[in-house]
Amino acid sequence: MVTIAVDAMGGDHAPRSEVLGAVEAARSYGVRVLLVGREDLVKPELEQHKGSNHLPIQVVHASEFIKMEDSAAKAVRTKKDSSIRVASRLVRDGEAAGVVSAGNTGAVMATAKMVQGMVPGVERPALASALPTVTGKPTVVLDVGANVDCTAKMLAQFAVMGEIYSRSIMHAQTPRVGLLSIGEEEHKGNELTRAATPLMKTLPVNFVGNVEGRDIYKGVVDVVVCDGFAGNVLLKVSEGVADVVKHMLRDSLTATLSGKAGAWLARNAFADFKRRVDYSEYGGAPLLGVRGVCIICHGSSNGNAMKNAIRVAAEFASKNLNTKIESELSRLASAQVAARVE
Amino acid sequence: MVTIAVDAMGGDHAPRSEVLGAVEAARSYGVRVLLVGREDLVKPELEQHKGSNHLPIQVVHASEFIKMEDSAAKAVRTKKDSSIRVASRLVRDGEAAGVVSAGNTGAVMATAKMVQGMVPGVERPALASALPTVTGKPTVVLDVGANVDCTAKMLAQFAVMGEIYSRSIMHAQTPRVGLLSIGEEEHKGNELTRAATPLMKTLPVNFVGNVEGRDIYKGVVDVVVCDGFAGNVLLKVSEGVADVVKHMLRDSLTATLSGKAGAWLARNAFADFKRRVDYSEYGGAPLLGVRGVCIICHGSSNGNAMKNAIRVAAEFASKNLNTKIESELSRLASAQVAARVE
Repeated sequence: MVTIAVDAMGGDHAPRSEVLGAVEAARSYGVRVLLVGREDLVKPELEQHKGSNHLPIQVVHASEFIKMEDSAAKAVRTKKDSSIRVASRLVRDGEAAGVVSAGNTGAVMATAKMVQGMVPGVERPALASALPTVTGKPTVVLDVGANVDCTAKMLAQFAVMGEIYSRSIMHAQTPRVGLLSIGEEEHKGNELTRAATPLMKTLPVNFVGNVEGRDIYKGVVDVVVCDGFAGNVLLKVSEGVADVVKHMLRDSLTATLSGKAGAWLARNAFADFKRRVDYSEYGGAPLLGVRGVCIICHGSSNGNAMKNAIRVAAEFASKNLNTKIESELSRLASAQVAARVE
Repeated sequence: MVTIAVDAMGGDHAPRSEVLGAVEAARSYGVRVLLVGREDLVKPELEQHKGSNHLPIQVVHASEFIKMEDSAAKAVRTKKDSSIRVASRLVRDGEAAGVVSAGNTGAVMATAKMVQGMVPGVERPALASALPTVTGKPTVVLDVGANVDCTAKMLAQFAVMGEIYSRSIMHAQTPRVGLLSIGEEEHKGNELTRAATPLMKTLPVNFVGNVEGRDIYKGVVDVVVCDGFAGNVLLKVSEGVADVVKHMLRDSLTATLSGKAGAWLARNAFADFKRRVDYSEYGGAPLLGVRGVCIICHGSSNGNAMKNAIRVAAEFASKNLNTKIESELSRLASAQVAARVE
């Protein structure tokens, strides 16, 4: 039975959503859950769920928690007994296979990196998001915000991690990996992408070259690699477009009766798209490259979103992604050393 | 009467769309147009328009032209008598107030910069795009692709140019200027945005701080400043989102009869959005900071798009944007020198 530590104090509706998600995940997937947070708040919430005392759920006390509006860096430094920190420690100490949090994203990333540590060979972790495409198969985009300034080597490592994610979790056969740029031709891009291209070509992945912003939702590749600044802009612009198109549609649709019914149907499609673009509502976004598993959810996650994230965390743990990442990167490092020696 | 030089050989449908646009602009707006391109191709096209010999349109011969698939850098270097080069020269020599081209964007930008030169004080030109928002008023985003790697100083200059554009052409009263980043707080961003923030604060513009990708289409600011890589990603992602949302909508809408009618209406709204996001179809995108005026249109522009671009070019010329940019930047430079002396 996989054990997942859940930061019970992270989200906007904590600990209600976290406890509900834990109860449902424990019931549906047979996952063991450690709910980490203030006992005086979490236990009463848990006791409201009938029969929860028979489920494999345990409350682990943490006296502090980090708020959404806290400065991530400062909170991580000062709140030594925060719920996310205690949850990360459980992973570090082998008591849980992964952590799930709907808390302050910056604080969760910094804590996971510091407490759980990195997979050997990984320079920086990357937040990965699976975006919907017209083909129906998702495209994995990384990094979407863990590292705002990246080197070419970091992008190359993201490619390796994203490829393993796509293959192991998304079941892509031979994932096509693209580099986000501003034109398909190799010379089109900025200093970073031009430096990354030769490195990407040496990787043991199916690198197809540059892809443009408009290609992401076409599903022409399975993995899109970019720095965390561009990746974050990309995600948030996508949300914004959905809003403005909805607005424009409403104006043109509600002009007629048949359009009114269409507008109602459209509203659902838009809500669905936004949910799917918002990485954190759709089973959460994995922070790839840290030891153990770390899944980050949206602050507004409800019980269902938390349940999904716990399922995803358990799946990540069972697929041994980190072992694959470690062996791939070490194989790569040896090959590069060998190439230099020759 | 304002004179605009039109690169008659630039677009995918050249010279047909260019000639049609010129005829209609000359008729509707009283603009004088110099159609630059191969006389043997342009003149017969022009003669097909009845009464065009009475319009203020003149054909200026250029023996070469740059193709879409040409390498911009190489074509600019080697094709000394290309239509875009001759058109730019007409602006440099004061025979035209501006140039309009639907040609290879990279080649048009490089040519304008080289031949027309820069407005004194401007380090780099910026391609500006006016995006639709839910408020109905457009947001000016720059740079959307002229400079993939930017310095903080370049971003500050983009802010000044974008503010003047928004004020003079979009009629925003006191344009709110935002810096594209990944969080509203000042410390959130990459090295570039963090370096740009203190500079932005010294500018004589209404700088409101960081904005996120999702804010662009909300219309919370009038001008969004970013580097050309992020700006280009932003534009192309927007197009891509429109496509995938349309796809998802179609699936849910066509399930019912009222939905089918809604889907038909929705198709138009999507087409409209895409046209408006595609800077170049919507009156073209100005390359701010070059001497004279340079308006870049989409390669697939039809006669109507060319006509609009010619109108916009004439409007830019009559509003003396460059004089304003020059005086604003020189005032700023003196203020900075004075501050250093104190």
